[in-house]
Amino acid sequence: MENPLLLPELREMLSGEDDGTLSEFLVEAHPASIAELSEGLSVEETWQLLSRAPLQRQAEIFAFYSPQKQVTLASGAGSEQLSRLLEAMSHDDRADLLQRMEPAVVERILPLVAKADREDIRRLLSYPEQSAGALMTTDYASLPADVTVGEALALLRQQAPASETIYYVYVLDDQRRLIGFVSLRDLILAPISATVRDIMHPDVISVRVDEDQEQVAAKLAKYDFLAIPVVDDQHRLVGIITHDDVLDVVTDEATEDALHMGAVAAMVESHLEAPFFTVWRKRSLWLAALFIAELFTFTALASFEDAIKAVVALSLFVPLCISTGGNSGSQAATLTTRALALGQVTPQQWFRVLRHEFFMGIALGVTLGCIGFVRAALTPASVLDGTDRIMLALVISLAVASICLWGTLVGSMLPLLFRRFGVDPGYSSSPFVATFVDVTGIVIYFSIAKAILF
Amino acid sequence: MENPLLLPELREMLSGEDDGTLSEFLVEAHPASIAELSEGLSVEETWQLLSRAPLQRQAEIFAFYSPQKQVTLASGAGSEQLSRLLEAMSHDDRADLLQRMEPAVVERILPLVAKADREDIRRLLSYPEQSAGALMTTDYASLPADVTVGEALALLRQQAPASETIYYVYVLDDQRRLIGFVSLRDLILAPISATVRDIMHPDVISVRVDEDQEQVAAKLAKYDFLAIPVVDDQHRLVGIITHDDVLDVVTDEATEDALHMGAVAAMVESHLEAPFFTVWRKRSLWLAALFIAELFTFTALASFEDAIKAVVALSLFVPLCISTGGNSGSQAATLTTRALALGQVTPQQWFRVLRHEFFMGIALGVTLGCIGFVRAALTPASVLDGTDRIMLALVISLAVASICLWGTLVGSMLPLLFRRFGVDPGYSSSPFVATFVDVTGIVIYFSIAKAILF
Repeated sequence: MENPLLLPELREMLSGEDDGTLSEFLVEAHPASIAELSEGLSVEETWQLLSRAPLQRQAEIFAFYSPQKQVTLASGAGSEQLSRLLEAMSHDDRADLLQRMEPAVVERILPLVAKADREDIRRLLSYPEQSAGALMTTDYASLPADVTVGEALALLRQQAPASETIYYVYVLDDQRRLIGFVSLRDLILAPISATVRDIMHPDVISVRVDEDQEQVAAKLAKYDFLAIPVVDDQHRLVGIITHDDVLDVVTDEATEDALHMGAVAAMVESHLEAPFFTVWRKRSLWLAALFIAELFTFTALASFEDAIKAVVALSLFVPLCISTGGNSGSQAATLTTRALALGQVTPQQWFRVLRHEFFMGIALGVTLGCIGFVRAALTPASVLDGTDRIMLALVISLAVASICLWGTLVGSMLPLLFRRFGVDPGYSSSPFVATFVDVTGIVIYFSIAKAILF
Repeated sequence: MENPLLLPELREMLSGEDDGTLSEFLVEAHPASIAELSEGLSVEETWQLLSRAPLQRQAEIFAFYSPQKQVTLASGAGSEQLSRLLEAMSHDDRADLLQRMEPAVVERILPLVAKADREDIRRLLSYPEQSAGALMTTDYASLPADVTVGEALALLRQQAPASETIYYVYVLDDQRRLIGFVSLRDLILAPISATVRDIMHPDVISVRVDEDQEQVAAKLAKYDFLAIPVVDDQHRLVGIITHDDVLDVVTDEATEDALHMGAVAAMVESHLEAPFFTVWRKRSLWLAALFIAELFTFTALASFEDAIKAVVALSLFVPLCISTGGNSGSQAATLTTRALALGQVTPQQWFRVLRHEFFMGIALGVTLGCIGFVRAALTPASVLDGTDRIMLALVISLAVASICLWGTLVGSMLPLLFRRFGVDPGYSSSPFVATFVDVTGIVIYFSIAKAILF
């Protein structure tokens, strides 16, 4: 978001002689505030602004621009300028940036980056997306076990400028295996002559480098950690994941889930800003798929042509009956998806869910069936075609109750089935369940009608 | 979640003589792990377990039980025991607990709690739910400006045991007004003789005590803070909100949004664990409301009785036409709700959204209309009742395109309207939009049919 009030002032300061105000602002203000304020500047102006700040500070501000803006800025920078910036950036932020850039550009830039940094970048880029490895940063603080608290504090002072956090410090043996953990609070409170081994917590909770980011987020949230260490299969420390990155993961996953529920493919950008054709393609793909599936409602209805011709009233109740399935199905799917996400249920417990939803579906179906009975009993004579009003009401209430039960069962089972086959359970929500239940609902409705009325 | 493997061992240790293993486990393990492991114990057993740990540790473990379990445990404790525990608990956790307990029980307990703690509890309980005040804790670390770094570190050592975090320290004047901020990293790196005023950051980003928790979460996430200070209208520091509580807020809000989208009232507990009747009531309330709204589809269809009787084919396309509106509406509603949540758009910018979605709705409508034309052109003669196949196909494609546009417009505007009137925009998703568009879709469809065919 831009701050329209201050942008002109910023432009003026940029074009004029530097009287110190700008340099002071660039060093004193929070990097996120500087990034927000300068969001509206052109690529050239932004680099002009950044170049007035020390390199370390440039890297901090840069990391707070939006992912898209970072790519644009990086593409508009000189190779030399960009490689210095990459060396100064925090290790996870620069890996994220390079991940998003054209591979050809990355291959041109990397040789200019210092060897240690280059190797670190290549390692981080090698982890699969959404894994702990892709989320972690390698600039953590660590200590050997056999130093005193006083020595440890001195070591931390040295590591502080290059570390993402020094509040959580990991204790490593000479093979870099994770053997303990101390917080800076522990160190501050301990006697200066104690050794790190004396005060460290030996049972460190960690995640494996190939663990999924959702599990990482759940673990960090469970223990209220500032950061969680990432280890390889030999229990060597390879990185840490900090609380702020986990917060971003949780926000992103929530957005993704919401988009799936609303039948939209995930879009990184705002749908109002992205190119019209891209948005149209993503949206029409989903809608067309649902539309084509929904074509079967015609086929299903056409197969009951005789019943529809005989009693017009039956066709008037079609939207009511089938929407009941869609609504009860969406509801059950949402609840099961949430229970899965919160770890309250696993796909293996499908029978427990099925049993619960069976009785719930009946209870809900009876509720809606009663309302349906009353409404159908008031059907005007002109559309009854000689059918008994009470018999029609019986058909409608039975159909509504059955379809409600059916929707509930389908809605509660689909997310478990999706999870079992590695598909995001979020896809099973609203429009998908509704479309599936629409077609089957028609068959249930007219089968009941034929059995009772004809 | 229980850990079924170790629970029997824990029970055995509890009933036997304490050989030190249990006491060691209670002090060494992470409080969250102890809480998880002992989740399956009865109230009596849990208190037996807790009483083997020092009071401070008891309070830490207690805070990691689920909210429901905390209430059950507190209700099963003696008043004396509970009041000592409350004094030891962190200030936000105990306020959350008392908020959930019966007011009568709280009033019986509070007089037994030490005066300072009692006043702190009453103050925290007085803030409205979901405000910064209700989320914050009052056990923060603070410093005066005119002490040296060495003195500051000594002061922090004193405050450490009672503070939620000592990594972020707030600098206050003698009126307790917030005048600066230093991190423990700053203090560790600064020369021992510098004053806090020299190294503090004077422009502190804070939130007001009455700000909504969603805004608080957005601010903390934006700046990657560990904690954010909360001030009153005189800019006096009244509390801090830490990263772990914000992570919980974000998770809770995402869950709540998903439930609204799926037409379920928020449930604190798992729907599989909660009492059957409670779950039935919450679920049937939504379904019945949607069902009653959907009754109008009958009324709408009945008003086109003559057209339906004249051409049976028309009624066979009803589910296809109206589901198009529901799907395109859900999609547009989801995108607008997301754009609102991410701050990409405000209700004031409704015209920009309307214009974008107008053209998008036309593009999507034409796409679906073409598919609909092909399908309708293949309608079997038996249901055509003498209508021209191509004219029917024209009706269907026009209806599908118009309803798609209508659904897109309704879906994109409803969330803005809801936000404008203080309702959660999440409610405007899937089932709600679908129900609204179903009824209006029938009117659009048959109006087009009547204009072209009759």
